[in-house]
Amino acid sequence: MAILVVGSVAFDTIETPHGKVENCLGGAATYFSLAASYFTNVRVIAVVGEDFSAENEAVLTKRGVDTQGLERANGKSFHWAGSYLENLNEAQTLNTELNVFETFSPKIPAAYEDSEYLFLANIDPVLQERVRSQMSRVRMVCGDTMNYWISGHREKLARVLKGLDALLINDKEARMLASNDNLLSAAREILTMGPKTLIVKHGEYGATAFFGDKSFSGGAEMVTLPFRAPAMPLAEVVDPTGAGDSFAGGFFGYLASQPELTPLVFKRAMFYGGVMGSFAVEKFGTERLQALDRKEIDQRFELFRGLSHIE
Amino acid sequence: MAILVVGSVAFDTIETPHGKVENCLGGAATYFSLAASYFTNVRVIAVVGEDFSAENEAVLTKRGVDTQGLERANGKSFHWAGSYLENLNEAQTLNTELNVFETFSPKIPAAYEDSEYLFLANIDPVLQERVRSQMSRVRMVCGDTMNYWISGHREKLARVLKGLDALLINDKEARMLASNDNLLSAAREILTMGPKTLIVKHGEYGATAFFGDKSFSGGAEMVTLPFRAPAMPLAEVVDPTGAGDSFAGGFFGYLASQPELTPLVFKRAMFYGGVMGSFAVEKFGTERLQALDRKEIDQRFELFRGLSHIE
Repeated sequence: MAILVVGSVAFDTIETPHGKVENCLGGAATYFSLAASYFTNVRVIAVVGEDFSAENEAVLTKRGVDTQGLERANGKSFHWAGSYLENLNEAQTLNTELNVFETFSPKIPAAYEDSEYLFLANIDPVLQERVRSQMSRVRMVCGDTMNYWISGHREKLARVLKGLDALLINDKEARMLASNDNLLSAAREILTMGPKTLIVKHGEYGATAFFGDKSFSGGAEMVTLPFRAPAMPLAEVVDPTGAGDSFAGGFFGYLASQPELTPLVFKRAMFYGGVMGSFAVEKFGTERLQALDRKEIDQRFELFRGLSHIE
Repeated sequence: MAILVVGSVAFDTIETPHGKVENCLGGAATYFSLAASYFTNVRVIAVVGEDFSAENEAVLTKRGVDTQGLERANGKSFHWAGSYLENLNEAQTLNTELNVFETFSPKIPAAYEDSEYLFLANIDPVLQERVRSQMSRVRMVCGDTMNYWISGHREKLARVLKGLDALLINDKEARMLASNDNLLSAAREILTMGPKTLIVKHGEYGATAFFGDKSFSGGAEMVTLPFRAPAMPLAEVVDPTGAGDSFAGGFFGYLASQPELTPLVFKRAMFYGGVMGSFAVEKFGTERLQALDRKEIDQRFELFRGLSHIE
């Protein structure tokens, strides 16, 4: 089944202990689309500027991503500059230029209207809600957000949360959203805000799914107990940018590829999320995600499975 | 098989967001002994002062811990005061009074000499080495240490590391010991210093075992790939003191209880470590560890297993 993703397609300038790259292709929707493309069809809605080349677009189309919804506007593409020199686990934002994103109003191509899976990447909750409300046939909606929207735009965000089957955020964002330092208590609090399932990403330690009463993941066994997909310790983390979006792409891409959502499918999706996140950080930008094949993805899945499985 | 543990038996004054307790029974050897006592026989070597009551000792003997090696000295017992008000994941030490520990020289009772398992809890590496060198029949030695010894007493610590089957430390200590921020690289470096296996404790995220060429955990499958025992998110962490020592007690206690050390036994031991650590933090001091039974331990083991197992 096709996934529709709305979010940023951007150019990033990134500095890590492994070096520096300038204006490489990035953005949440880009990482998400590439990661999900190994599992299912992906359709993207975003805006880019005049600096976005045919070569840039080919990165997506080569992976079969449908770019009909990639709007071109006058001006420059969204640009983000960040550094991981102080802390490899958390980017320090040096500069954010919204550029064409400042006046972005997502338009949904007619060919996208039958999308059954919707991913609302981290953008203004008003835009997330606008896309959500136009997608009448959607079966499942997952979304991301960030500290900026949590701390400064609560009411706008609250409306988005009510419509989510799953919210994917990191530890810090979960604690901030619930104003509670205990992760389990924070999760329970967030599950009262709307999302049927909450997935908290722990960076190098994997991710945990918490299930609400109406959790879309089915199976009584999963309603009360959380599920953790651990991540394999990596020899080299070259560039952490996009790890969370790649997790989302692997997770949601796998879900959308399956005929039925069972607890087993959900658990496997969590592991595929971790796997795609782990590939993303091995090279700068989206380089590693551009040239994978399903066989090496499944091999890493087995490694991740072996990491914590007793039998 | 009996485990001999040498380490601190102490009184702690602890402040957490859940309250404050003064002079409660604590110390690494106490937490370790209680946790291990649910799996195997435990013998303890430590020193206490005149303030150590029969009631305090009964906490250990009620759990079947052999206290022949608990030396009584003139003066006060070791006292530690710490606060978790700033950060529940890391104690802020407010005060350390070594007291009778200042002149402690461990003596091994004759009845302890046939111990086949030895745990060197976090004390002066000179004392760890002294005990280690006197235990000729020992089959397996695990040890702990802390930042104080890593940063200020490298050479003394290096001698201990060479004799360890497994070193159990936390993330921060591992990165400090190897001078490397990447956990896998740090682990590889530490495995060249002597320990055949390194277990890194991640607090709320569980623990990971890394295996060297001569790893005592057997099985080719475990020589190169790490193994992670994840920890279940807890609704309430009342007092994190002793979680790491309780992990060690559950881990080593289970290992010592098994007739043979197979990869499966090792993996299960890692999970039991996480389980005992999770119990320890539910109440102040050692209270929770004093009154468990094997049934609830095994029930939690199954919960932890379910947390990350796909099938």
